[in-house]
Amino acid sequence: MADSINASGKKAVVLFSGGLDSSTVLKIAVDEGFEVVPLSFFYNQRHKVELEHAKKIADRFGLKSHVIINLDFSPIKGSALTDAGIEVPKNRINAENPHETAEDIPATYVPARNTIFLSYALALAEVTLAGDIFIGVNHLDYSGYPDCRPEFIAAYEDMANLATKASVTGKLRYKINTPLINMGKKEIILKAFSINVPLELTHSCYDPVDGLACGLCDSCVLRKKGFGEAGIKDPTRYYKS
Amino acid sequence: MADSINASGKKAVVLFSGGLDSSTVLKIAVDEGFEVVPLSFFYNQRHKVELEHAKKIADRFGLKSHVIINLDFSPIKGSALTDAGIEVPKNRINAENPHETAEDIPATYVPARNTIFLSYALALAEVTLAGDIFIGVNHLDYSGYPDCRPEFIAAYEDMANLATKASVTGKLRYKINTPLINMGKKEIILKAFSINVPLELTHSCYDPVDGLACGLCDSCVLRKKGFGEAGIKDPTRYYKS
Repeated sequence: MADSINASGKKAVVLFSGGLDSSTVLKIAVDEGFEVVPLSFFYNQRHKVELEHAKKIADRFGLKSHVIINLDFSPIKGSALTDAGIEVPKNRINAENPHETAEDIPATYVPARNTIFLSYALALAEVTLAGDIFIGVNHLDYSGYPDCRPEFIAAYEDMANLATKASVTGKLRYKINTPLINMGKKEIILKAFSINVPLELTHSCYDPVDGLACGLCDSCVLRKKGFGEAGIKDPTRYYKS
Repeated sequence: MADSINASGKKAVVLFSGGLDSSTVLKIAVDEGFEVVPLSFFYNQRHKVELEHAKKIADRFGLKSHVIINLDFSPIKGSALTDAGIEVPKNRINAENPHETAEDIPATYVPARNTIFLSYALALAEVTLAGDIFIGVNHLDYSGYPDCRPEFIAAYEDMANLATKASVTGKLRYKINTPLINMGKKEIILKAFSINVPLELTHSCYDPVDGLACGLCDSCVLRKKGFGEAGIKDPTRYYKS
């Protein structure tokens, strides 16, 4: 039985938004020799410009297999990322000590988003015969999202292996890979730089203005801080800086 | 802390296809006093006529809250239910002894479908403050789908309670309710009859012809068998019988 597990070779679905973290994960998976299927979502997100970045990065890596799925989040109200009526919090966190000022889960939280993203990744992994799924979550310099924590990922992997025909019949055993899980932004940026991720093409901002990063949302603040600590020039074009 | 769990009252999201099983589950949830949000999906399924049945049944129960979400399954190939090029198996199972002839998982299996359905239900449950999710899975007279088994449901519930802001902050504790899990079709039909489910409005067929049930797919065969064993007149209009 063991011989048949993931016998189709090293194939992986990589959840890929075009951001700094998932672009780094994508490059890690490519460098590890996986045949990669990058998976992005259009869910009418406020920062839908990230998909243009994702396409450019997939092109740069020569990945023709990039899949973009349309998600209907319209009945799932209440997130600043999908509801134009809710403002993205600005200047919420202290760049010097993000956890000191950001104990709460912010308005940019999208209900069950990573659960839905991973579930599509699981379906795509089953039909492409990929045993591995990569996701760029990390729980250190993060915004407090529950679905970025190691305990969530472990529970998802357990569930996934009971969910599908491929896993139940022993054809595949799913592994949810989280190579950034214990990294802070500084470490992620140093890693990205060392493996030639095109940092200038990545997009992190939740609330871009004319396609430029706002510089004030949690994601921008954490990104700026990370570049500063890494001692690497931040190539991001900010609307305000 | 315990006081705040599901303090918003008895509210439930019910996965509801318009079929016999989920219509029965919907009525069970209504009868148990839940404020119910029925959730259906359009995924360009071969049997999309089921949504018309779902709307009629929700209307019959006076449920204005019916939510229909569009799912993009186009990149998820390989199922007879979503791919016009794959035939729905006919005369596959023996009506007298379904498990004897149907050991394999059939072509109507849709990769990770219940995982994706439940993930949307979880998101909708979070934003509607519903602590309960109902799903009409059963593992006796079923077609062999892995995501209809109790062990899958238990793992999903564990994962769900680690996934969301509402569960992590103690506002809600999610319960995945499967009232039909140990019932065969006969028992489900007797239950449905006893609680006045409008059986004539429910739709089960995977491969309808001019809106009528084919009578030959697994779902039709199991439904026919169930009505026969229950001794209740089958109100289904079959194209072939």
